[in-house]
Amino acid sequence: MAGAVVGDEQSGDDPTTLELCRVVADLLGQEAGVFMPSGTMCNLVAILTHTRPGDELICDHESHIYGTEAAGAAALAGISIRAITSPHGVFDAAQVLEMIRPRTRTAPRTTLLSVEQTTNFSGGAVWPLAQLQAVRDLAHAHGLKAHLDGARLLNASAATGISAREYALGWDSAWIDLSKGLGCPVGAVLCGSSAFVEQAWQWKYRLGGAMRQSGVLAAAGLYALEHHLPQLVADHANAQTIWHVLSPCGALRFDPPQPASNILRFGFTSPLVTAHEFAARCLKEGVRVRAIGSDFVRVTTHLDVSASEAQLAAQTMLAVAQSLSQGG
Amino acid sequence: MAGAVVGDEQSGDDPTTLELCRVVADLLGQEAGVFMPSGTMCNLVAILTHTRPGDELICDHESHIYGTEAAGAAALAGISIRAITSPHGVFDAAQVLEMIRPRTRTAPRTTLLSVEQTTNFSGGAVWPLAQLQAVRDLAHAHGLKAHLDGARLLNASAATGISAREYALGWDSAWIDLSKGLGCPVGAVLCGSSAFVEQAWQWKYRLGGAMRQSGVLAAAGLYALEHHLPQLVADHANAQTIWHVLSPCGALRFDPPQPASNILRFGFTSPLVTAHEFAARCLKEGVRVRAIGSDFVRVTTHLDVSASEAQLAAQTMLAVAQSLSQGG
Amino acid sequence: MAGAVVGDEQSGDDPTTLELCRVVADLLGQEAGVFMPSGTMCNLVAILTHTRPGDELICDHESHIYGTEAAGAAALAGISIRAITSPHGVFDAAQVLEMIRPRTRTAPRTTLLSVEQTTNFSGGAVWPLAQLQAVRDLAHAHGLKAHLDGARLLNASAATGISAREYALGWDSAWIDLSKGLGCPVGAVLCGSSAFVEQAWQWKYRLGGAMRQSGVLAAAGLYALEHHLPQLVADHANAQTIWHVLSPCGALRFDPPQPASNILRFGFTSPLVTAHEFAARCLKEGVRVRAIGSDFVRVTTHLDVSASEAQLAAQTMLAVAQSLSQGG
Amino acid sequence: MAGAVVGDEQSGDDPTTLELCRVVADLLGQEAGVFMPSGTMCNLVAILTHTRPGDELICDHESHIYGTEAAGAAALAGISIRAITSPHGVFDAAQVLEMIRPRTRTAPRTTLLSVEQTTNFSGGAVWPLAQLQAVRDLAHAHGLKAHLDGARLLNASAATGISAREYALGWDSAWIDLSKGLGCPVGAVLCGSSAFVEQAWQWKYRLGGAMRQSGVLAAAGLYALEHHLPQLVADHANAQTIWHVLSPCGALRFDPPQPASNILRFGFTSPLVTAHEFAARCLKEGVRVRAIGSDFVRVTTHLDVSASEAQLAAQTMLAVAQSLSQGG
Repeated sequence: MAGAVVGDEQSGDDPTTLELCRVVADLLGQEAGVFMPSGTMCNLVAILTHTRPGDELICDHESHIYGTEAAGAAALAGISIRAITSPHGVFDAAQVLEMIRPRTRTAPRTTLLSVEQTTNFSGGAVWPLAQLQAVRDLAHAHGLKAHLDGARLLNASAATGISAREYALGWDSAWIDLSKGLGCPVGAVLCGSSAFVEQAWQWKYRLGGAMRQSGVLAAAGLYALEHHLPQLVADHANAQTIWHVLSPCGALRFDPPQPASNILRFGFTSPLVTAHEFAARCLKEGVRVRAIGSDFVRVTTHLDVSASEAQLAAQTMLAVAQSLSQGG
Repeated sequence: MAGAVVGDEQSGDDPTTLELCRVVADLLGQEAGVFMPSGTMCNLVAILTHTRPGDELICDHESHIYGTEAAGAAALAGISIRAITSPHGVFDAAQVLEMIRPRTRTAPRTTLLSVEQTTNFSGGAVWPLAQLQAVRDLAHAHGLKAHLDGARLLNASAATGISAREYALGWDSAWIDLSKGLGCPVGAVLCGSSAFVEQAWQWKYRLGGAMRQSGVLAAAGLYALEHHLPQLVADHANAQTIWHVLSPCGALRFDPPQPASNILRFGFTSPLVTAHEFAARCLKEGVRVRAIGSDFVRVTTHLDVSASEAQLAAQTMLAVAQSLSQGG
Repeated sequence: MAGAVVGDEQSGDDPTTLELCRVVADLLGQEAGVFMPSGTMCNLVAILTHTRPGDELICDHESHIYGTEAAGAAALAGISIRAITSPHGVFDAAQVLEMIRPRTRTAPRTTLLSVEQTTNFSGGAVWPLAQLQAVRDLAHAHGLKAHLDGARLLNASAATGISAREYALGWDSAWIDLSKGLGCPVGAVLCGSSAFVEQAWQWKYRLGGAMRQSGVLAAAGLYALEHHLPQLVADHANAQTIWHVLSPCGALRFDPPQPASNILRFGFTSPLVTAHEFAARCLKEGVRVRAIGSDFVRVTTHLDVSASEAQLAAQTMLAVAQSLSQGG
Repeated sequence: MAGAVVGDEQSGDDPTTLELCRVVADLLGQEAGVFMPSGTMCNLVAILTHTRPGDELICDHESHIYGTEAAGAAALAGISIRAITSPHGVFDAAQVLEMIRPRTRTAPRTTLLSVEQTTNFSGGAVWPLAQLQAVRDLAHAHGLKAHLDGARLLNASAATGISAREYALGWDSAWIDLSKGLGCPVGAVLCGSSAFVEQAWQWKYRLGGAMRQSGVLAAAGLYALEHHLPQLVADHANAQTIWHVLSPCGALRFDPPQPASNILRFGFTSPLVTAHEFAARCLKEGVRVRAIGSDFVRVTTHLDVSASEAQLAAQTMLAVAQSLSQGG
């Protein structure tokens, strides 16, 4: 980062940022890319670019875009969301079809589909490639744009061996995050056609996301893409390690039943145990997990967690689960 | 209408409009009212007054505010909608509770509950008074405002004998429509506290809903409230008449099983019959019904339909249903 | 109005409303029209249809759209306004050119010009036809749409003998009000191309401006267009009558120096006299005039003011002006 | 930057970012601060936090917030802007007063004043402290919030010796940029009361401005605040150097007549020379200046320009000016 060759990204003069955008666009089989301060801005700018106020977006009911972006889609883009209820954020084309409104004066205009690969709060499930393409094609057949929220897309590739390009090809926009599994401090890259990216740039600027010498951040992204991808496979192995320790415990109920990537999600068989209580107890023991509502706990493995730490964390969580289920 | 004493409503100078607002506010147990060109503007202005961009509203998944107001809530008020799936638009407090988001930086701010009495596209179901009050109280207990979409509130009263005031008391806003069962040409009245109505007036003006000598329309409303309420009871009887003719027909599936007010909703036992086809055939035979999506037909009885016409319409629909189910 | 043949305008079934829209579209040399509850909604819907959030509109600094529509353009359409300072709301093409922003990522996108014919708060000035066409052509040459706020367009025709069609031809949208000089209780008609009107209809619906049996209001509009146009000439004569009485009074300063239509605007030579004070004193004497800020008074003649009443009102205003200027 | 102690800023866990926010809040005499990816986001978030849709902001007609933020205030916050025309972006309380609308149903609600210290596109003028306080006090007296756009506030301090705290004290929000004169790669800090910052954080998150390990950027800010302030004085001296070379040239017209900080602005005495042409020619000779519209050139001195480079740049610009004015 310190050695990055930089310039003013607003004038298109930061060579490191331009290089990162080119690399990620290639990775995703898209024409062009734009660097963003966060994944949330990738989603928001994609929506602002693809839609007009009064449009409606279809996504899963647990998706980040619906419940964890402070209603930015409605507040800033003026769009409505119609959510599909699916087991782990992985739905099918028939469910999308059911959510598309008729084109009447009185109905919201359904114009955008958004899918997470892997699913985040739904437990890190990986969309099968054919199913992902099927919902994309259904969307296109009905005049909708298709947006791929790829915050964890590289995890899907690490899990299946299918390339990010294969997953992202043919989507009207797709992005990856640099600051999650890849371990960079700040940033994400939103990709699409050149025309899309040109418009996205104006929205990024309007939102206040245009930075100056962003090359210092982009350099970290380039480094991570070159060196950290194997780490994602290790993260997945660590998730399996934790699952092997915790899954026999009768106090816990895994949903999905087994992790597919670097996320585990589980609830409690006893109605007396809440996710917040579990998370608070774990934190006291040095393990940070996240309560999703009161019913679910999300555990994420990443760069800074080694195999032995994963083992240790799993033992800690097991002890907490056992203690709580015995009313402790 | 022709004899109405009028003035400029924007200067608060139209005595007939002022009188109508006073009468409806009394009817609903609210402090004040404002005359609107439509029920859709009542819902929109209530949302604009109760919320800020980034807030979230809870309502049923089939409610008018979600699917039939062209996403005005999102497009113009910047709010998100979280919808409850319930059988006939009648849900309970536990379902509302589940939809309230935690107060975090990242979640939409849940600030408003909206309920339809009677439910419209869900088949004209009537909320029991206690259940209506329970969801209102749950909303208040969690800091939400409670809005009553009373497009058909007087139908609920006609069906149960419970006064509109009993239903609407304690809601932060409530409105009735003059142009549906009451038979007026144009208008609705939105009520709430005086402070609410003062703000609602500015939004009405900003939206372009401030008219001039609206007294010509308000006069019709006053007349209808004095003379047309018994008609609602007759409308309900006509709905029963239709149901008695149609319900034995095996080709139809009523949902709800029996009408509670002036609305009947039914689907088809054969997957080959669509609602649009049924509606089109009925129209050719002189009976206008509405397809709701491809699965349901909504039949509404009103002022301009006599008992014998209801009988006739029922026979026509029966013939169409039988013909279609035999592939005709 | 009572005898109007009506239907549900939302289904395109109200023949009287359809007839009014056709008549006004013809009058303005436009393809199609849509009935609106107010002129404010005509302006707002035109903006919503012609622009996207982040666009910028050019108009005069005293125009109704900028200062008297509660910032609806910004609040509901997300557009910025760049205002021209001109003597009486009548500017030239060079001034428009100066206000058009360059097409950069950082500048608002200038996409719409709005002009009032006659000007309202600027004192009822009439745009010369050639000047009106020049600003329209300049707008088109730079890719802007051109919108004609014709709340008082028929007054311009009455003043000059130039038809409304000549004034409105070639504008992307134009409207007239039925409730001002024409004396109808409620309504205005917004016109443009068929494609424009189709989109405008969805915005009208979304805003809550879609009514039911609007034919009762449209009937008044049709009657007024047939019978009340000569009245506008009489209104202008009455404005001249008032001006002849008041203009010799040294306490008043007319701006514009002489009325061109049915509006007079004047200030006070003494800094101690405020417009609000003048308006309040006149009201006490039975004459209603409007203070525009603290500096100007606007006097409007209309249908309900006869020649002798105009004479009487002028004498009353003269007495008030003299009394106030003497510190009374 | 490389050695920064970091954490996730979204969890309030990045100690370097927290330290920077504390330091800047102290510097500005404000309670709290929030780190932002850009100055544009500081302005936008301040507006979103201080206002509601339909409100109106007063600022100078050449201010960044009006003409150079892609109409974000209108597009994303739904507010209108009413601009003051002043010589160099420095206006007085009487001008603000004239722009405040009356509190009526029909007028935009004037609720916010924004001032740039120093002015940017108006030529780097420095507001006298008393005048700055006078407009702030006038705003408060009329119920408006007062926002200080301090992108170049530290330049004002460098020019006058008056501290940033004295300038910023008593404003409802104020910010400084780290990436302009201070030379950091990315970032700005928006300050205000603790309650203001809490709300600002939610808007930052909603806009997509919440980053992860922003400490890497904040570290640069802390370093710059400790080491780069004297540089601003040198920048100002360089601006004087350039002015001494260029001001005798009859082809140029300086406006303001002499630079007060690190910005020079000038036009051309010949109508045949355009700013874009001048800027293009200078760039060819290795000097980057910015055309503001076609009439003005803005020259900025900064960290990366030494005294001798300033001298050289001035000679280059002089040669270009002379050549162009002779039709070359």
